[in-house]
Amino acid sequence: MSENMKRILVSIIGVPVILGSIYLGGIYFFIVIAVISLLSQLEFYNLAQHKNLQINKKLGLLAGLAVLYLYYASKEEFFLPTLLLIFMLFMIIEIFSGRESPLLNSSIILSGIIYPTALIGTLYPLRQTDSLIGVDGLNLIIALLAGVWLCDTAAYYIGKSVGKHKLFERVSPNKTWEGSAAGFAASLTVIFALKYNGFLGSSFTTVDAIMLSLFSGVGGQLGDLFESLIKRDAGMKDSGFLLPGHGGFLDRFDALVFAAPMTYIYFIYY
Amino acid sequence: MSENMKRILVSIIGVPVILGSIYLGGIYFFIVIAVISLLSQLEFYNLAQHKNLQINKKLGLLAGLAVLYLYYASKEEFFLPTLLLIFMLFMIIEIFSGRESPLLNSSIILSGIIYPTALIGTLYPLRQTDSLIGVDGLNLIIALLAGVWLCDTAAYYIGKSVGKHKLFERVSPNKTWEGSAAGFAASLTVIFALKYNGFLGSSFTTVDAIMLSLFSGVGGQLGDLFESLIKRDAGMKDSGFLLPGHGGFLDRFDALVFAAPMTYIYFIYY
Repeated sequence: MSENMKRILVSIIGVPVILGSIYLGGIYFFIVIAVISLLSQLEFYNLAQHKNLQINKKLGLLAGLAVLYLYYASKEEFFLPTLLLIFMLFMIIEIFSGRESPLLNSSIILSGIIYPTALIGTLYPLRQTDSLIGVDGLNLIIALLAGVWLCDTAAYYIGKSVGKHKLFERVSPNKTWEGSAAGFAASLTVIFALKYNGFLGSSFTTVDAIMLSLFSGVGGQLGDLFESLIKRDAGMKDSGFLLPGHGGFLDRFDALVFAAPMTYIYFIYY
Repeated sequence: MSENMKRILVSIIGVPVILGSIYLGGIYFFIVIAVISLLSQLEFYNLAQHKNLQINKKLGLLAGLAVLYLYYASKEEFFLPTLLLIFMLFMIIEIFSGRESPLLNSSIILSGIIYPTALIGTLYPLRQTDSLIGVDGLNLIIALLAGVWLCDTAAYYIGKSVGKHKLFERVSPNKTWEGSAAGFAASLTVIFALKYNGFLGSSFTTVDAIMLSLFSGVGGQLGDLFESLIKRDAGMKDSGFLLPGHGGFLDRFDALVFAAPMTYIYFIYY
C-alpha cells in the first residue's frame, strides 16, 4: 500500500472516531483525548531518548494519566499537590535507580506530563463545560478545531503555490510568511463566519472571535513550530510511526498543544 | 576569617531572621521563603548549566516568583493555568531564541520552578493556615523544622562516631545506616515529645505524629540525597557560594524540599 493510501485509510477511520467522540462527549471523548495525549507523550519521550537519556516512560505515562484524570473528574484544583507528589516520586526513583543524568531524566519525565499531555488534555474540560459565556463546549471545540484545521490547510496550499519569503528557515524550512498569513486569515474567516451564523451564541463578542482566531491560527502555528524545533533538536524527521502516512501523533496534533490550552485559559479562567 | 567562623557568623544572623519571620508569619515569612526558594532555584540552574545548557535564568526565577505568589494569595487552584501559561511562554521563547537543545532547556527551566521553588514554597501555606486539625500552623512548622534539624544533627554526629555501614556510597559517600537510623529516631523523639507536651494540640493523633516524623526524618534525608545526586551529576561539590561555610542555599535547605510538601499535602489535602 502506498504512503498516500495509508494516509487516506487512517483518515477514513480516524476522523469519524474523533468527530463522533467530540459529539458524544463524556467518557468517549475522554478516551480519545487520553489516547492522543499519551501516545504523543510517548513520542516526546522517544525523541528525548535521542539525547541519550534514560527515561522511565511507563511511569511518566502513568503520571500523565493521573493528570488527565484530574480533568475528567473536574478536580483541576488538585493539580498542585498531584504534580508535587509526582515530582517527589520521580526524584526518589532517581536516587535508587543509579541511572546517569538524574537531573535531566527527572526534568524530561516531568516536562512530558505537561507537554503534551496536560496541554492537550485541556480539550476535555473545554468540551464538557455546559455554558462558556453562553456557548456550548461542543460548539466552541468545533470552532476551535475548524480554525486549526483550516489554518493548517490554507498555510500548506497557499505556502506551496505562492509562498516566497521563508518564515523560520532554521526551524521549519518549508514554511513561508505567505502561507502563515493565509493560515491565520483562514482561521479568522471561519471563526467570524461561525460567529455571524449564531453557532457560537449571542454573547460571543468580536473580541472573543479575534482571540479564538489567534489561538487557532497563531497558537496552532506556534505549536507546529515548537514540535519541529524539538524534532530537529533530537535529529528526527517524524515524531513517530504510529499513524502511517501522517508521521506520528505529535506531528498530527502539535497545533492543539498551544491552541487548546490558550482557549481553555481564556474562556474558563479569564 | 576561617570557614568555621564564617559558618558561625552566618548562623548568628540567619537563624534569628528565620525564626523571627516564622513567628511573625505573613509578608515577613513570605519574603524569607521567597529568598530561600529563589536563590536555591538559581543554584539549581547553575548546576544544570554544567550540563552545557543555556537556561534563561531570569525568566525561570520570575516564573518561580509567580508560583510563590499563588501560595501568598491562597490561589493554589490557579496552579494549573499558571503552569500551562509559563510552559507555553518558555516554548515560544525557545522557538525565537535559536539556542541549542531547546528540548532540554525548556524542561530544565520548568523543573527549576517545581524543584526547589514550588516544593519549598509549601512552607508558606503550612505556616499561614490557622487550624490544621486543631494545631496552629506556627506550631506545626516549628515541629517540622525541629524534626528536620535534629534528624540532620543526630545523623551527622552518630554517623561520624559509630557509623560503619554505608547508606548510599554512590550518591553520598559519608552517610551511614547508623547515622540515618539515629536521625529518624531523633525526629520521632522530638515529634512525640511535642505531641505529649500538648504543643501540637489535642486532636493531633499518634498516626499524625508518626507521619510527621517520617516526613521530617525520612523525607528530609531523601531531600538531602537527591541534592547530593544532582550535584554529583553536575560534577560540583557545593550547590553555590552564597552562604559562607554552609555551601549553598540548596545545600542548607535540601531536606525541606521533601519534608515541607509532604507535610503540606498530608495536613492540607488529605
